[in-house]
Amino acid sequence: MEEASIFRRKSRIIRIGSVRIGGDEPIAVQSMTNTDTRNVAATVAQINALERAGCEIARVAIPDADAVRALPDIKKGISIPLIADIHFHAQLAIDAVKNGADGIRINPGNMAKERIAEIVRTAKEHQTAVRIGVNAGSLQKDLLAEYGVSARALYESALRSVSLFEDLGFEQIKLSLKSSDVPMMVEAYRLIAAATDYPLHLGVTEAGTLVDAAVKSALGIGILLAEGIGDTLRVSVTGDPVSELPIAYSILRALKIRKVGAEIISCPTCGRCEIDLAGLVSQVEQALAGRKNYIKVALMGCVVNGPGEAAEADIGIAGGRGFGMLFKKGVACKKVEEKDFVPVLLEEIRSLDNEP
Amino acid sequence: MEEASIFRRKSRIIRIGSVRIGGDEPIAVQSMTNTDTRNVAATVAQINALERAGCEIARVAIPDADAVRALPDIKKGISIPLIADIHFHAQLAIDAVKNGADGIRINPGNMAKERIAEIVRTAKEHQTAVRIGVNAGSLQKDLLAEYGVSARALYESALRSVSLFEDLGFEQIKLSLKSSDVPMMVEAYRLIAAATDYPLHLGVTEAGTLVDAAVKSALGIGILLAEGIGDTLRVSVTGDPVSELPIAYSILRALKIRKVGAEIISCPTCGRCEIDLAGLVSQVEQALAGRKNYIKVALMGCVVNGPGEAAEADIGIAGGRGFGMLFKKGVACKKVEEKDFVPVLLEEIRSLDNEP
Repeated sequence: MEEASIFRRKSRIIRIGSVRIGGDEPIAVQSMTNTDTRNVAATVAQINALERAGCEIARVAIPDADAVRALPDIKKGISIPLIADIHFHAQLAIDAVKNGADGIRINPGNMAKERIAEIVRTAKEHQTAVRIGVNAGSLQKDLLAEYGVSARALYESALRSVSLFEDLGFEQIKLSLKSSDVPMMVEAYRLIAAATDYPLHLGVTEAGTLVDAAVKSALGIGILLAEGIGDTLRVSVTGDPVSELPIAYSILRALKIRKVGAEIISCPTCGRCEIDLAGLVSQVEQALAGRKNYIKVALMGCVVNGPGEAAEADIGIAGGRGFGMLFKKGVACKKVEEKDFVPVLLEEIRSLDNEP
Repeated sequence: MEEASIFRRKSRIIRIGSVRIGGDEPIAVQSMTNTDTRNVAATVAQINALERAGCEIARVAIPDADAVRALPDIKKGISIPLIADIHFHAQLAIDAVKNGADGIRINPGNMAKERIAEIVRTAKEHQTAVRIGVNAGSLQKDLLAEYGVSARALYESALRSVSLFEDLGFEQIKLSLKSSDVPMMVEAYRLIAAATDYPLHLGVTEAGTLVDAAVKSALGIGILLAEGIGDTLRVSVTGDPVSELPIAYSILRALKIRKVGAEIISCPTCGRCEIDLAGLVSQVEQALAGRKNYIKVALMGCVVNGPGEAAEADIGIAGGRGFGMLFKKGVACKKVEEKDFVPVLLEEIRSLDNEP
């Protein structure tokens, strides 16, 4: 491949429970529940659904002491690391660490300095990592006065917290500098990436519903990952958080950073298409949903680009009129009737999966 | 704004019917029908639906002479420029130009050289622009042998066609170098952007269904646009082509290239959210669908980032328990009951729209 591969920024490694973030570790995919954290059953069920969809670290909001008290029970029901997300109330952060959170996320800008020293002391004792999460929607007043809502303000806010933590002798930190403004977020991460070697948690915040969230996340997170910046990520969608995971993996797969699951190459169809391609794609997608092993499946409507794309895939069909040519690892194998497309493809994928 | 603005590559301007492509012209948004082009009524209806969703240039597949014959009738029923997409058969391209296509798209690599001279002669007579559209799925055999399926092969294929057209004295051309492989596509466009000043039509081809298509298009098209490369674009979705337009405009809006329609800033919700945010967003999205004028609407679930984001928007609600604070142009205006969120927001948006 002549396409330039990505030179990843060298970051240090921190640990969130069993997951290592930074260095040459895989870019970890995170999500966050939208259940009431105090409702243990609902929160556990959602975290397990997120895990099935590929989530590797889950975060829960901790708005009050009851939510902190739910943490041990939530931990018992799940098997991926758990991060507690706390704003304003330092005591909740301290208690979340004591109650077994694998990591906490705070925005030190909205807590008193003295209390942050207490959080750090507790985090040290429990070897719990901390995400310093600054956000364009909640910047400190003096930074807003000096820089406005801008990449520079996000960067200065993060840097200020980093200094505070370093002064307290604590470096088990990762950083996020989120904004709903993609160019601002990209620029803020570029600045902090050049200034520190802490691992970075990427995200475009308040990105909207499915399509806008996919577009903004792919742009913001993707432009940075393509530059080698970023160690873990979260896609934010207004809606079911389970819908964040396919977007996250689609970004990682498209950039060839993590080849996970089924990549479906399928044409938009046009006046040349003589098979029910959308129906075929939908059936194959459903059958391969949640798959972990990478496979490239080409489902093409006609003979213009069909054979070429199918030849590049692990398995492919190039459609004609009521028939299609089946390709396996670049070789045209046999003509298949349209009614047999799905069973034949799935049988061939099973046999590829079972190859040593 | 300190965020770097985009320096756009200087391209020459060509004309597709009433739309100018290149130079400092707006990045034009295209789509393609998936109806049978010979079915005039269905094709006209789809083009008009595409136009209502923001499509500025429509393309139809021309698989045979009957499709060419449909072109004048299709043109009568639509008001945006029409491009005829032809493969293999030079005669169809010649006849499409004669039948009034505002532009044609061919891949000269799959036609005989002598026939291309005829196409060019006809295009000159009718002042019809030509897109040279190369595609990773249909590269010439000798290029595949030398470079494999790669950015370099796409680039060499495009360059070869450009030389052919220049030798024939025809420069009303734009170029596309599409692939389903995002890094390959990005690299191919970078190469051609550096080598020529023809306007570029951007696209990731065979990008799959909605979410994958949004992610891959945002990555491939977005990375290039952020570098100043690209003069027109098409997002490809397996499914209803109307779904391509919101993705296209979301990319342009997120990069601040074309501020069109409603940008909804809405949080993913979490355990802190005490209003039905997803329901609110969905109602507001529906009410503002198809809007042309730009407006930034923040719909936020809680007080952590809510007030900050709402203050940056034209209009916003930061939710609390059963109530929300309404923000207008950065100023907190009044408390609104949750049941009144939608009517109050829409009324305020109407009054903003009517301001001089």
